[in-house]
Amino acid sequence: MRAPRIRIRRRERYGFVPGTPPGTVIISPVAHKPVMHVMAYNEKEFTESPITDIEEIRRYLSHWAVTWVNVDGLGDAQTIQRLGDMFGLHRLALEDVVEIQHRPKVDTYGDHLFFVTRMIEEGFPVRTEQFSIFVGKRFVLTFQERPGGCLDPVRKRIRESLGRIRNSGADYLAYSLIDAVVDAYYPFLDSFAERVEAIEEEVLSQPTPVTVSAIHKAKRDLMIVRRVISPTRETINSVLRDGGQPITEATRIYLRDCYDHTVHVLEMVELYREILAGLLDVYLSSVSNRMNEIMKVLTIIATIFIPLSFIAGVYGMNFDTGASPFNMPELRWKFGYLAFLLLVAGVAAFELSYFWRKGWLGERKHKTEDEANDNDQK
Amino acid sequence: MRAPRIRIRRRERYGFVPGTPPGTVIISPVAHKPVMHVMAYNEKEFTESPITDIEEIRRYLSHWAVTWVNVDGLGDAQTIQRLGDMFGLHRLALEDVVEIQHRPKVDTYGDHLFFVTRMIEEGFPVRTEQFSIFVGKRFVLTFQERPGGCLDPVRKRIRESLGRIRNSGADYLAYSLIDAVVDAYYPFLDSFAERVEAIEEEVLSQPTPVTVSAIHKAKRDLMIVRRVISPTRETINSVLRDGGQPITEATRIYLRDCYDHTVHVLEMVELYREILAGLLDVYLSSVSNRMNEIMKVLTIIATIFIPLSFIAGVYGMNFDTGASPFNMPELRWKFGYLAFLLLVAGVAAFELSYFWRKGWLGERKHKTEDEANDNDQK
Amino acid sequence: MRAPRIRIRRRERYGFVPGTPPGTVIISPVAHKPVMHVMAYNEKEFTESPITDIEEIRRYLSHWAVTWVNVDGLGDAQTIQRLGDMFGLHRLALEDVVEIQHRPKVDTYGDHLFFVTRMIEEGFPVRTEQFSIFVGKRFVLTFQERPGGCLDPVRKRIRESLGRIRNSGADYLAYSLIDAVVDAYYPFLDSFAERVEAIEEEVLSQPTPVTVSAIHKAKRDLMIVRRVISPTRETINSVLRDGGQPITEATRIYLRDCYDHTVHVLEMVELYREILAGLLDVYLSSVSNRMNEIMKVLTIIATIFIPLSFIAGVYGMNFDTGASPFNMPELRWKFGYLAFLLLVAGVAAFELSYFWRKGWLGERKHKTEDEANDNDQK
Amino acid sequence: MRAPRIRIRRRERYGFVPGTPPGTVIISPVAHKPVMHVMAYNEKEFTESPITDIEEIRRYLSHWAVTWVNVDGLGDAQTIQRLGDMFGLHRLALEDVVEIQHRPKVDTYGDHLFFVTRMIEEGFPVRTEQFSIFVGKRFVLTFQERPGGCLDPVRKRIRESLGRIRNSGADYLAYSLIDAVVDAYYPFLDSFAERVEAIEEEVLSQPTPVTVSAIHKAKRDLMIVRRVISPTRETINSVLRDGGQPITEATRIYLRDCYDHTVHVLEMVELYREILAGLLDVYLSSVSNRMNEIMKVLTIIATIFIPLSFIAGVYGMNFDTGASPFNMPELRWKFGYLAFLLLVAGVAAFELSYFWRKGWLGERKHKTEDEANDNDQK
Amino acid sequence: MRAPRIRIRRRERYGFVPGTPPGTVIISPVAHKPVMHVMAYNEKEFTESPITDIEEIRRYLSHWAVTWVNVDGLGDAQTIQRLGDMFGLHRLALEDVVEIQHRPKVDTYGDHLFFVTRMIEEGFPVRTEQFSIFVGKRFVLTFQERPGGCLDPVRKRIRESLGRIRNSGADYLAYSLIDAVVDAYYPFLDSFAERVEAIEEEVLSQPTPVTVSAIHKAKRDLMIVRRVISPTRETINSVLRDGGQPITEATRIYLRDCYDHTVHVLEMVELYREILAGLLDVYLSSVSNRMNEIMKVLTIIATIFIPLSFIAGVYGMNFDTGASPFNMPELRWKFGYLAFLLLVAGVAAFELSYFWRKGWLGERKHKTEDEANDNDQK
Repeated sequence: MRAPRIRIRRRERYGFVPGTPPGTVIISPVAHKPVMHVMAYNEKEFTESPITDIEEIRRYLSHWAVTWVNVDGLGDAQTIQRLGDMFGLHRLALEDVVEIQHRPKVDTYGDHLFFVTRMIEEGFPVRTEQFSIFVGKRFVLTFQERPGGCLDPVRKRIRESLGRIRNSGADYLAYSLIDAVVDAYYPFLDSFAERVEAIEEEVLSQPTPVTVSAIHKAKRDLMIVRRVISPTRETINSVLRDGGQPITEATRIYLRDCYDHTVHVLEMVELYREILAGLLDVYLSSVSNRMNEIMKVLTIIATIFIPLSFIAGVYGMNFDTGASPFNMPELRWKFGYLAFLLLVAGVAAFELSYFWRKGWLGERKHKTEDEANDNDQK
Repeated sequence: MRAPRIRIRRRERYGFVPGTPPGTVIISPVAHKPVMHVMAYNEKEFTESPITDIEEIRRYLSHWAVTWVNVDGLGDAQTIQRLGDMFGLHRLALEDVVEIQHRPKVDTYGDHLFFVTRMIEEGFPVRTEQFSIFVGKRFVLTFQERPGGCLDPVRKRIRESLGRIRNSGADYLAYSLIDAVVDAYYPFLDSFAERVEAIEEEVLSQPTPVTVSAIHKAKRDLMIVRRVISPTRETINSVLRDGGQPITEATRIYLRDCYDHTVHVLEMVELYREILAGLLDVYLSSVSNRMNEIMKVLTIIATIFIPLSFIAGVYGMNFDTGASPFNMPELRWKFGYLAFLLLVAGVAAFELSYFWRKGWLGERKHKTEDEANDNDQK
Repeated sequence: MRAPRIRIRRRERYGFVPGTPPGTVIISPVAHKPVMHVMAYNEKEFTESPITDIEEIRRYLSHWAVTWVNVDGLGDAQTIQRLGDMFGLHRLALEDVVEIQHRPKVDTYGDHLFFVTRMIEEGFPVRTEQFSIFVGKRFVLTFQERPGGCLDPVRKRIRESLGRIRNSGADYLAYSLIDAVVDAYYPFLDSFAERVEAIEEEVLSQPTPVTVSAIHKAKRDLMIVRRVISPTRETINSVLRDGGQPITEATRIYLRDCYDHTVHVLEMVELYREILAGLLDVYLSSVSNRMNEIMKVLTIIATIFIPLSFIAGVYGMNFDTGASPFNMPELRWKFGYLAFLLLVAGVAAFELSYFWRKGWLGERKHKTEDEANDNDQK
Repeated sequence: MRAPRIRIRRRERYGFVPGTPPGTVIISPVAHKPVMHVMAYNEKEFTESPITDIEEIRRYLSHWAVTWVNVDGLGDAQTIQRLGDMFGLHRLALEDVVEIQHRPKVDTYGDHLFFVTRMIEEGFPVRTEQFSIFVGKRFVLTFQERPGGCLDPVRKRIRESLGRIRNSGADYLAYSLIDAVVDAYYPFLDSFAERVEAIEEEVLSQPTPVTVSAIHKAKRDLMIVRRVISPTRETINSVLRDGGQPITEATRIYLRDCYDHTVHVLEMVELYREILAGLLDVYLSSVSNRMNEIMKVLTIIATIFIPLSFIAGVYGMNFDTGASPFNMPELRWKFGYLAFLLLVAGVAAFELSYFWRKGWLGERKHKTEDEANDNDQK
Repeated sequence: MRAPRIRIRRRERYGFVPGTPPGTVIISPVAHKPVMHVMAYNEKEFTESPITDIEEIRRYLSHWAVTWVNVDGLGDAQTIQRLGDMFGLHRLALEDVVEIQHRPKVDTYGDHLFFVTRMIEEGFPVRTEQFSIFVGKRFVLTFQERPGGCLDPVRKRIRESLGRIRNSGADYLAYSLIDAVVDAYYPFLDSFAERVEAIEEEVLSQPTPVTVSAIHKAKRDLMIVRRVISPTRETINSVLRDGGQPITEATRIYLRDCYDHTVHVLEMVELYREILAGLLDVYLSSVSNRMNEIMKVLTIIATIFIPLSFIAGVYGMNFDTGASPFNMPELRWKFGYLAFLLLVAGVAAFELSYFWRKGWLGERKHKTEDEANDNDQK
C-alpha cells in the first residue's frame, strides 16, 4: 500500500529558500503562469475582461469606483513585482504572496491591508490553496495558486447586482471574497460529516483494521483544516478589533458574521476530532472484546476435551493386563466402556456447569444491540 | 444496526447556502410554516391572541407597555422579512434567524439586542432547537423552529402576574425567556445523570460490548450540549459585561443569576464527561481482567493435562516388547499401571503446587466486592 | 453490587423548580426544619442563645457590636423570608440559600455581601453541605443544611476571646467562618492521602479488579471536591481583588491567607488526580504483564509436549507390521524404545534451549522488587 | 513490598491545626530545636557567630550595614515569636514560617518582604525543606527546617568578598539566597536525567514489570518538584513585576536571571514528564509485542501438530480390520506407513507455507535494532 | 543496544556551576577556543578579516557604519571579558553567553539588546548550538559554540550588497542573523517530514517493534526543538511589542515576518507531534489486530481437531471387546470405520459453520486496503 504523501512539505520544496534576503520574490518552478482578470464596477455599471498588459489596469483604476484584479497562478516573478509597483505594495507582502504555504494572517501597510488565507478544495485528502488579498481604497487585488475556486458566487453578485455589493466600496468586496472562502468550508464539513458517519457505522457494526487507518487519515485531514481555519479566525478577529484603514464600520458588521462562521467551522472541526478520538477507543475496545470471545471459545473447547483425551489415552495404553491383575483391570470389566463413557460425560458436564456459572456460555442475557438502539430513540 | 445520524449536518442541508449575498433569508424546504402569537401586558392587564395579519401587531405596540410576538416555525421568508421591516431589524440578524444551526451569540443593533440560543428537547439522542430573541424598548420578538418548548411557565407568570414580570419592561421579559431556556437544561441533566448511573452500574457489574457504544453515544450527546451551552454562557456574560442598550441595571442582577445557571450546567457537563471517560477506562480494564481469567483457566487445564496425555501416549505405543527387553519393559511390570498412576498424580500435584504458588488458584484471598462497598459507605 | 448513587442529581430533585419566577423560595420536602441560634459579642462580653422568635434578633442587633445568627436547616420558607426582610436581603440571594446545590460564589448587594460555599463532611463517598453567609456592617447571618459541621472552633474562639476575633468586626467573623470551612478540607485530604496510599500499595503489590473500581471512586470523589473548592477559590480571590463593602483592609490580609489555603487544597486535589491516573496505567500494565506470564507458561508446556505427544501417537498406530517391511519397522528394532526416548529428550532439549535464548525461562536475572526499593531509598 | 509513604501528608500531621485562630504559632513535636547563627558585613569587614540570646542581635543590627540571622530548626515557638517581635514581623507570616508544608509565595508587609520557598535535598525519593526569608532594609532573617542545605556558597562569597555581595544591601543578599536555593535544583535535575536515561535504556532493551513502577515513582517525584518550583517561579515573577519595597532596581536585574533559572527548571521537569509518559507507551507496546511473539510460537507449534496428532490418533484406533474390509484397510497396505508419513509431511508443509505467507516465520526481514540505531546517528 | 544519551544534561556538566556569584564567566573545559572574525560595511564598501587582537576592533568601530564581530567558540574567559569591557556589556549577559544551555531570551541593557537563541544542526538526533547576539547602535557582536552554521547567506548578502542590508543599520543586520537562524529550521522540518512519512508508511504497512522506538525518538527530537523555538517566538514577540532601543520601526516590519516564521515552525512541530501520537495509536491497534488474527488461527485449528482427537482416542482404547458385548462394539461393526469418518466430518463441518457464522473464516468481505486507498483519492 502506497501511503499518501504528507502535503505540508511542499513549502520547503518551493516558494521559499532559506537565507535569501527578505522581500525576494522567488518563483516555484511548478507554479502556474499567472492569468489576470479584471472586474470593475460602480453602482450603475460593471465591466470585466482578461488582462495581458498590466498598464491597462491604470485605466480601470481611474474610471471605476471599485476595481478587482484577480491573478490565477504565481509563476512569473516579473508580473507580480510590476503589480506590486503599480499598487505600491510592500516587498515583504509580495514575498508572502508567492510563499505558498504561508500561515493565514493580516498585515496593515499604510493605506492598504494585506490578507492571506487558504481556499479549500473538495475531496479527500484535504487540499488547500493560498489566497492573498490586497485591499486599498478603490481596488482589490487577489492572487490564487490555480484557476478555479469558490469566487464565482461573488462574481455573479457583481454581475447581477445582487445584495449591496455594487453600492459598496472595495472593503465590502474584500469582505465578500473572504466570506466566500470561509463559506466554502461548509461543503467540506458536510462531506466530512458523511465520512465520520461512515466510519462510525463501521466501528459500531463491523470494525476492521482498515477502519483505524481511515480514522487516522480523517484526523490528519482535520489537523490540516484546523491549521488553516484557526489563524484565519484570529486574523478576522484582529481586523474586527483593530479596524484597519480601508475597512469601514458598515463592512465590519458583515465581517462579524464571517467571524462567526470561522468560529463555527472551528467548533465543528473540534467536534469531529473528539468524535474520531472516541471512535478509536470504541474500536480498541471492540478488538479486545472479539479477542475475549475467541479466547472463550478456545478455552471452552480445549478445557473440555483435553482432560477427556487424557482419559481416553489412559485406556489406550498397552500395559500387559496378563502380567498382573493390577494392570488396567478396567479394560476387562463388563461395563468398563460404559463406565468410561459415564466418566467422560460427568467430567464434561462438570466443566460446562463451571463455565455456565462463570457466564461464559450463552453470553448471558443482556440488552441486545437492537434494544439498545430502541432505547436510544426514545 | 442502523447508526443514528449525526444531526450537526443539517445546517449544510438547509438554512444556509454558501455564496449567497449576506442578509439573504433562505427558507429550508422542510421548515414549519410560521404561526404567530402575541402577548401584551402592562402592570394591570394583559391580552393574548394568535395573529395572522402582521399589521395587527402595530396596534399592540402602541397600546401596551410590553408586546411579545412569538413565531413558531421559520418556513415563510416573506413573513419573517415583513416582521423585520416592522421592527426595523438588521437583515443579517434575519438571516441568522433562519440559519437554524447558528451558534449562540448576541449582537447589538442600535436600540435593539439580538440574541440566539438553543432550546433542548427531552429524550436521547439530544435534540436542540434554535431560539432567537429580539429585544427592543417595548417589544420582544421570538422565533422558534417548532411549536412547543419550554416557554409556558413564562406565559403563566404573565397571565397570573406572578413575580415582578408584569411590573417590569421588555428586557425583564427577555431575561425570563432566556432563563426559561437555560432552566430547561436541568431536566435534561437530571435524566442524563440517570443514564450515567445506569452505565456506571453496568460497567462495574456486568460490562458488555454494548456498554462501550452506550458510553460513546452519551459522550457525543454531551459534546452537543456543551457546544450549545458554552457559547450561551459567553453570550450572557458579554451582555452582563457590556450592558447592551435595552437591558436595565435591575434586570442585569437577574441575568447574573441566569449566568450562574449556565456555568453550573457547563460544569455538570464536564463532570459527566470525566465520569464517562473514567468509565471507559474501567471497562477496558475489566475486559483485560476477564481475558486474564479465561487464559488462566485454559492454561491451568492445558498445562496439567498435556504432559499427562503425553505419558499416556507413550504407554499406548506399540513397540514390540517381544523383540527386545529394552522395548517398554514397564508394560509388563507387575505394578506398571500403578506406577503410571502415581507418576500422573505426582506431575499433576507438582503443577498444581506451582500454580498455587503463583496465586493462580483460588484467586487469593482479597477484599471482595461487597467488603469494598461496605468500605465505601463508612 | 449496588452502585452508589451519584449525588449531584439532588439539585434537580428539590430546591429548584425550572420555570418558577426568580426569587421564589422553594423548600425541599426533605429539608430540615430551621433551628436558629444567636451569638453576639463586643470586646468585653458575649452572649449566646437559641432563638425561636425572629423578632428577638432586633434586640441583639441594637445592643452588640457583632451579632451572628446561625440557621441550621432550610425547611421553612417563611422563617427564611422573614429573616430576609429583617436584614434587608435580596430575594435572589434568598432563593440561592435554599437552592442547595448552588455553585460557590459571592454577590454584593448594596451594603452587604452574600457568600455561598460548601462544607465537607468526613467519610467516603464525599458529601458536602451548602453554607451561605450574609455579612453586613454589624451582623453575620449563616445558613447550613444540617446541624453540626466545622464551626465550633470559631464559637470557642468567641467564647474564650482567643485571637483578635472579639476585637474585630463582623467582616472578621465572616472571614473566620470561611476559614473554618476551608480548613475542614484538610482532614479530608489527610484521610484521602491514606486512601491513595492504600490503593498505591495494592496496585504495586497485588492488584485486583476491585482496585480499578476503587481508583474510579476515588477519582469521582476528587472531581466533586474540585467542583466545590475551585469556585470557592475564585470567589475569595474576587473578594480580595474587588474588595466588597463590609470587608476592611485589615481583614483582607487574613483572607489572603485563606485564599492560599484554597489554592493549596486545589493543588493537592490535582496532585492526587494525577497520582490516581498514573496508578491506573500501572495497573493496566501489571494486568498485561500477568497475562504475559500466564501465556508464557502455557506456551512453554504446550510447545514442548504437543510435538512429543505426536511422536508417541505415531508409535501408537496400528499399521500392520506383518503386512510389509515398510510398515513401522522401528517397532521391532532392538533399541526402538530407547531411540524414541532419545528423540523425545532431544526435541524437548531443543525447545528448552530455544526458550532459554528467548529469555522465557527463569525470567532472566533482573532487579528484584526489593532491590528496586532499596534503590529508592538511597 | 513496602510502598514508600506519600510525603505530602505531613502538613496535616503537624505545623497546622485546623480551626485555631490565624496567627497562632504551633510547633510540631518532631521539629528541630532552633539554632541561630548571625553573619553581618559591610563593604570592608564581616563577622559571624552563633547566637543564643536573641537580644544580641540588636547590637549587630545597629553596627553593620547588613545583618543576616539564620535559624535552623522550627522547634521553639517562643524563640520564633521573640524574633518576630524584634523585627516587627506580622503574626500571619510567623504562622506561615512554622507551617512547614506551605506553598511558595511572597507577601509584602509594610517595609519588609516575606518570601517562602523550598530547598531540595539530594537523593530519591525527592525531599524538600521549607525555607523562609524576611528581607528588611538592613536585615535578612531566614528559617530552615533542618541544619545544612545549599547556602554555604553564599556564606563563602560573604567571607571572601566574592562578586558584589559585600558592596550591596540586604536585598542583594536575599536575592543570593533565593538564587542559591533555585540553583540547587540543577544537581537534582542532573541526577534525575541519569535516572530517566536508565529507565529509557531499560524500556528499550529489556523492560520488566519493575520498570513501570520506576516510571511511576519518577513521575511522582517530578510532580512534587513541579509543585514547588512552579509557585516559586510565579513568586519571583510577582516580585519582578510589582517590585516590593526593599528590592532595589539593581537587584531586580539579578532576580530576572534567577527567574530565568526557575523557568528553565520547570521546562526540564515538563520535558522529563513527557519523556516518561512516552516511555510508558513504549513499554506497553513492547509488552504487547512480546505477547504477540509468544502467541505466535504457541500457535505455530499447536497448529502444526494438533492435526498431525489427530491423524496419528486415527491410525491408532482399534477398529477390527478383520470384521470388515471397510475397517481401516490402510493399516494393511504395503506402503501404508509411508503414505502416512507423506500425508503428515504434506500437512506440515502446507501449514508452514501458510505461516510463511502470513509473515509469522523468520519474523520477516526488517531493519534490526542496530541498523535503526545507526540510522539514528547519521 | 546502546541508548543515545539525553543531551539536555550537558548544561549541568559545564558552563554553569551552582552557587558561584552571578556574572562569573566560567569556561567549560571542552569548549572551543574562540576565533574572532570581523565584517564591517557601509552603503558603499565593506571589509572583512579575522582578528587576533581585540584592540583592532576599535578601529573598525570608529570607521564603519556597522561592525559585526563574530566569535566562534567560547573557550577563553579572558577574550570574552575583554570583549565585554570594550562594548560595555553587562556581566550577567556575559555569563549567559558562556552558559551554553541557556533558554532563548532577550534582555535590554541600556543602549544595547542582548538576544540568545539556538541554531539547529542538520541530522538526527537533533543537536542545537547556542547563538548569542549583542546589538548596539553601530555594532553587532555574535557568539557561537562552534565554527560553521547558518550565517553564510547573510555574509553573502553583505559582500554582494543583496537586498537592503548594506543600506541599513546594525539592527537590520541583527534581524538578518536571527532570520537566518530561524530559517535554518526549515530544512530540519523538511527532513523531519520525510522521517514522519517513513514511519507512517511503516506503521500502515508492516509495523515492527522498532517502529515504536522510532516514534519515541522522533517525539523526543520534537520536544527538544519545541523547547528552543517556543521561547524564541516569545522573545521575538516581546521585541516586537516593547521595541527595545536599537531596533528601528523599519526593521520591526521585517522582524514581524521572522515572527511569523517561528509561529509556523512551532505549528509544524505541533502537527508532527499529533501525527506521531496518532501513529502510536494506529500501531497499538495493529498489534492488537495481529494478535487477534493469530488467536483466530489457533482457535480454529485447535477447536476443530481437539474434539476429533478425542474421538480417535476413544477408539484407540483397549477395552477388551471379548470380555463383554458392551465393550466398544463399534470396533467390530462392519461400517464402524466409515461411521467414525462420517462423525469426524460432521463435527468438523459443524464447527466450521459456527466459525463461518462468527465471521472468523475468510475474514468476511470488507473493503480492501486498495479500495480504501482509492476512496482516499477521490
